[in-house]
Amino acid sequence: MVSALVSSTGVTDRAGVPGKVYLIGAGPGDPELITVKGLRCLSRADVVLYDRLVSEELLAGASARAELVFVGKGPRQHTLTQAEINALMIAYARSGRAVARLKGGDPFVFGRGGEEALALALAGIPFEVVPGVSAAIAAPAAAGIPVTHRDYASSVTLVTGHQAQGDRAAVNWRALAQLGGTIVVLMGVQALGNFTSQLREAGLPPDLPAAVIQEGTTPRQRVVIGTLADIAERALAANLTAPATTVIGEVVNALRETQQALACWEYTNHSTS
Amino acid sequence: MVSALVSSTGVTDRAGVPGKVYLIGAGPGDPELITVKGLRCLSRADVVLYDRLVSEELLAGASARAELVFVGKGPRQHTLTQAEINALMIAYARSGRAVARLKGGDPFVFGRGGEEALALALAGIPFEVVPGVSAAIAAPAAAGIPVTHRDYASSVTLVTGHQAQGDRAAVNWRALAQLGGTIVVLMGVQALGNFTSQLREAGLPPDLPAAVIQEGTTPRQRVVIGTLADIAERALAANLTAPATTVIGEVVNALRETQQALACWEYTNHSTS
Repeated sequence: MVSALVSSTGVTDRAGVPGKVYLIGAGPGDPELITVKGLRCLSRADVVLYDRLVSEELLAGASARAELVFVGKGPRQHTLTQAEINALMIAYARSGRAVARLKGGDPFVFGRGGEEALALALAGIPFEVVPGVSAAIAAPAAAGIPVTHRDYASSVTLVTGHQAQGDRAAVNWRALAQLGGTIVVLMGVQALGNFTSQLREAGLPPDLPAAVIQEGTTPRQRVVIGTLADIAERALAANLTAPATTVIGEVVNALRETQQALACWEYTNHSTS
Repeated sequence: MVSALVSSTGVTDRAGVPGKVYLIGAGPGDPELITVKGLRCLSRADVVLYDRLVSEELLAGASARAELVFVGKGPRQHTLTQAEINALMIAYARSGRAVARLKGGDPFVFGRGGEEALALALAGIPFEVVPGVSAAIAAPAAAGIPVTHRDYASSVTLVTGHQAQGDRAAVNWRALAQLGGTIVVLMGVQALGNFTSQLREAGLPPDLPAAVIQEGTTPRQRVVIGTLADIAERALAANLTAPATTVIGEVVNALRETQQALACWEYTNHSTS
């Protein structure tokens, strides 16, 4: 079916051409939420450089002859620096290999894909970006929360919980609070208390609905619902861990106010606190 | 390959069960940028209700026996109201059909998927949301623009150019300008001049980089680059039309400053003004 689609659309197979890097979004967690194009490029790569958030089920989509290289960052695991990852991509490509750089979510949504693309460009390595479904949108969806809804939010802002050293731009909390749309925070479990405090001090009401979704779209999905005032405490009490997505805004209740919604919604049968 | 992946992950095929609606994100334009799960649900549906932004190539992925129903809104085309679309989904599902509701981009990023989900829930119809890649992220990526980059933007805000009648929430321009991250505007070609004027009056500098991408990720992709001061005029002069994505922020130049980037980047070979 997929190959029929590919041929019917006239998409040229370039994955067989050596010396090219594919920056591929692996999607939010459910291995079936990779794109058709991402899976095709993965299946034809000679080398796969993958992150911590990429599932084993998805890696099964790589060729049996492909070299699989873990480069992701995780607790108690060997960690490559970004410079080392860049150097590795370039070295493999220069050796004539087709390289799949498989990244959780979308490469350009806080995935440092921009830095990797720039490094490849400066090294003169041909590359292609294959976008992916970001957990920022899909994890809330899996928990029954549309990040936009015309009655509740005219904008959605994605921010990262990691304000890494060397980041030039800090979040303007007051502006974020005044903007008034949906706020989605990626990777913010540890910093959640600080995050919600900043937003409350900046003027957002304590009873604003909030939700944290751990491992959204997977069978291990867990959801905690609360308010801006208590969501950090509730998430801690429920022992939620990364990867987690936090949603703040009226959209959290858009469908939850309807008893039927929870019964009809597919993913919400997973453990919800 | 895909079916092997599906079975290896233990994902149950529910598309054969009648009387269920799948709200599926079709992706940003390239038919290969639908998810594996979205394509699977589409291929097994009895009825496909599709929007204007869904390509014919993608519809070829539906079953030969499936009934294809155009419900999208477009100039000089018969238009169903949202209430009529909701009623149609519910009627087909109640007749025992598996319904694929195929929507451009992601169902929950300004796609009114939240309203459709709520209507299904209130009618007691089982449904499932299959997220898609949003043009808000993928169209800029295809034009060589990462919407986040740690050196340039700590947030990205998605806003819609359509402030439809009945929308409760208007955009707070001043807050949006002060937030300082990347701004992505969906569907804003006609309103672009108004949009950029509002942001300039709210304090954003006239020389802030901006780009408009028409039909991003497709062979018909066109890109216009400029500044907050002149992007509306440039887009008009180039006769850009919907569907279009506008990006405003320093990230527009993140890779464009590098001459090599444009040569190495796959999609930018398409017509760029």
